[in-house]
Amino acid sequence: MNMSGAVAGPTVQIIAIGDELLEGRTSDTNSRRIQQALGAHAVQVSLIQVVPDREEAIVRALDRTGAGDLVFVTGGLGSTPDDLTRDVVARWAGVDLAEDPEVKQLLQERWKKRGIRTSPGSVRQSQVPRGMTPLPNPVGSAPGLAGGLCGRTLVMLPGVPQELQGLLPAAVKWLDENGHLPRPRRTLLWRTAQASELALVRTCSDIKLKFPRLEWSWWLTDWGVDIRLAAPAGSAGADDLAAAEPEIESALGRLIYSRRSETLPQVVQRRMLDRKATLAVAESCTAGMIGATMTDQPGSSGFFRGGILAYADQVKTGQLGVPEDLLRDKGAVSQETVLYMAAGCRQRIGTDYAVAVTGISGPEGGTEDKPVGTTWIGIATPESVFARKYRFPADRERNRLLTVAAAVDSMRRVLELGDGDPPWQAADSWCRPS
Amino acid sequence: MNMSGAVAGPTVQIIAIGDELLEGRTSDTNSRRIQQALGAHAVQVSLIQVVPDREEAIVRALDRTGAGDLVFVTGGLGSTPDDLTRDVVARWAGVDLAEDPEVKQLLQERWKKRGIRTSPGSVRQSQVPRGMTPLPNPVGSAPGLAGGLCGRTLVMLPGVPQELQGLLPAAVKWLDENGHLPRPRRTLLWRTAQASELALVRTCSDIKLKFPRLEWSWWLTDWGVDIRLAAPAGSAGADDLAAAEPEIESALGRLIYSRRSETLPQVVQRRMLDRKATLAVAESCTAGMIGATMTDQPGSSGFFRGGILAYADQVKTGQLGVPEDLLRDKGAVSQETVLYMAAGCRQRIGTDYAVAVTGISGPEGGTEDKPVGTTWIGIATPESVFARKYRFPADRERNRLLTVAAAVDSMRRVLELGDGDPPWQAADSWCRPS
Repeated sequence: MNMSGAVAGPTVQIIAIGDELLEGRTSDTNSRRIQQALGAHAVQVSLIQVVPDREEAIVRALDRTGAGDLVFVTGGLGSTPDDLTRDVVARWAGVDLAEDPEVKQLLQERWKKRGIRTSPGSVRQSQVPRGMTPLPNPVGSAPGLAGGLCGRTLVMLPGVPQELQGLLPAAVKWLDENGHLPRPRRTLLWRTAQASELALVRTCSDIKLKFPRLEWSWWLTDWGVDIRLAAPAGSAGADDLAAAEPEIESALGRLIYSRRSETLPQVVQRRMLDRKATLAVAESCTAGMIGATMTDQPGSSGFFRGGILAYADQVKTGQLGVPEDLLRDKGAVSQETVLYMAAGCRQRIGTDYAVAVTGISGPEGGTEDKPVGTTWIGIATPESVFARKYRFPADRERNRLLTVAAAVDSMRRVLELGDGDPPWQAADSWCRPS
Repeated sequence: MNMSGAVAGPTVQIIAIGDELLEGRTSDTNSRRIQQALGAHAVQVSLIQVVPDREEAIVRALDRTGAGDLVFVTGGLGSTPDDLTRDVVARWAGVDLAEDPEVKQLLQERWKKRGIRTSPGSVRQSQVPRGMTPLPNPVGSAPGLAGGLCGRTLVMLPGVPQELQGLLPAAVKWLDENGHLPRPRRTLLWRTAQASELALVRTCSDIKLKFPRLEWSWWLTDWGVDIRLAAPAGSAGADDLAAAEPEIESALGRLIYSRRSETLPQVVQRRMLDRKATLAVAESCTAGMIGATMTDQPGSSGFFRGGILAYADQVKTGQLGVPEDLLRDKGAVSQETVLYMAAGCRQRIGTDYAVAVTGISGPEGGTEDKPVGTTWIGIATPESVFARKYRFPADRERNRLLTVAAAVDSMRRVLELGDGDPPWQAADSWCRPS
């Protein structure tokens, strides 16, 4: 749900070039990256065209843009013969291609470092349509290209997602400095976990009414919901933004895990490393997804030790010390079992903290008492062991992802709140009182 | 690399409609599903347009299609006021919308089952542009719509990926039966793992020269590479296909894990359940990704028991019984360590089989002897313990994914070859002799 109001600035179009995008082998995900990079500038993309590596298709796509448009062109900047973008754009605009000595030198240094002689392909990559500015590529070889051609502002970027992502900040900076984008709006960002979009919209509804000039955006993420608040450009909205900030902070409270671009696992890793603490996991229904998430980033061996995948009951008793009679009486998905799992894991792996989960992901295994989605999350700290029941509303795949997000975020809260305080509260909309 | 030759049949276009596709919140992945569903029919998509939920944008996109084109339109078929597709297409084509009694009845039965009275939105969903045929939706409420309008063949499908996927077979069947698609080609499919695309192209190069009329396609998947071989329509190619089949089978050998749409984890699950065998995992560098993969599908509790995440050395010694002096002398990433991990895991969890992995994913931790990407995979069976060194060529994220694919596929081979035979051979291009 995007609630932003009218949008100023140029019409933005994206042309994604590549046979692989039209043969079912891959989807265009670069457009999303471009849109997100433009987020603060209050411009909106009006058309994406995906076309094959063929001159007439690229020319037709360029012809569909209009004078004054800001046009991103992705793909086809590599060094092989089917990389046509540079040449076709120059021909379409009726300008020469000229070798750029600086680009050439950068490419040669790059090849030299890798022990490769300059190839004919790299020579092509140093050619720049007259009037365009090369943008150095921090990840790969092909530079980005930005400039005015045929009344449009064109930005050409490589199709390899990592290279495009690496070049985007420089491209947006170039556009901004050359006056091709509306001035960035003042924005505030809150990244939240453990509450649904609907619950957050309700939580913020009074603040929304109080500050009607502010523009709200809500984005679903892997970890929860991001909330972006923007002051409309050129108004007194900046004052509203400053006034709304403490009210939102207070309304969201512990739901906020970050106010910048950090992901939830990055926050947990940073806080673990800061206090030189160690973590282990005991996973039943997620069967390794939490461990995999906690080790996604370089440096995770500084705090993550390992854990027990206790998918079957025999592993809960044998490797985590859950008593057999308790498991029989209370069931594998119960407060008692998850408390034993967390405490047993912390003790056996020998860490400061342990996170444990046990739940019914579905589609089978639900009962009237414990329907599909019922999940217990437990956390053992040096001072205590906590447990909380969740009731996730989705299918197997999504329930498992929600379990991972809730478990990692509960750990984040313990690190922020202290080892003796339960990390949960009523506003966590995935929780139901047990 | 798609090596198919000239393509017959109509020009295919896709129009994806939805504000969320233009605001950076989601990417268009439906086009890829459509392309794959058309795969056997030798037609190729020439343009994808992504446009917002606005009448003039949708009309302009429709105007860019040509007479004779086959046009898929996705999104905007729901029941809310911003779902415009049905109305805009009817206005653009100059035809009436009329309520379809069968669709209305299906919708009413659907709502009734859920205890909901027919809503005004559902009434809109039963309206059909004159001349179009409704296609029942097996997943959601909005029917698909197919028919000829303004000289084009139009297929309108919901934007929700599960609903689109559910409707695609009926849509392709309708197109086929009404003569809008070239007759499906005879095709053969081999799904392979543990060999790179380049290695497979080399392996098949002689067969390719021998049967020049056949069309080859190579697709990267999560598990390896799919190879599709197609006989060109209306030729003697079908004989070539039959003659090439045994040659390819023999050249690819154990690299093949499936000849139909099954995924690699589905194959392992099926074979495990067939022989009532049980599995455990011991994961270092992947830290749970193999366990998560083995439990992706319903029914996994029939064979998967659990495992040990031995990210830190203390867990390898404490929970898996790897001797401390061996770990010190040989290192955590070594044949000896992975053999102990696999055997220790199988014994401690009490399963028939155990898969173990230990490797250097990067970006840190590489040495001259053991560069980033060096990974050992071990498998313990009731008869033996095997280990093999791999050298993956990518970054942290991709090396971890390649490790998962190689480990799961090695387990698949043991299930096919027998408990006493090592599952590896020289043609596995990710392996390097140790």
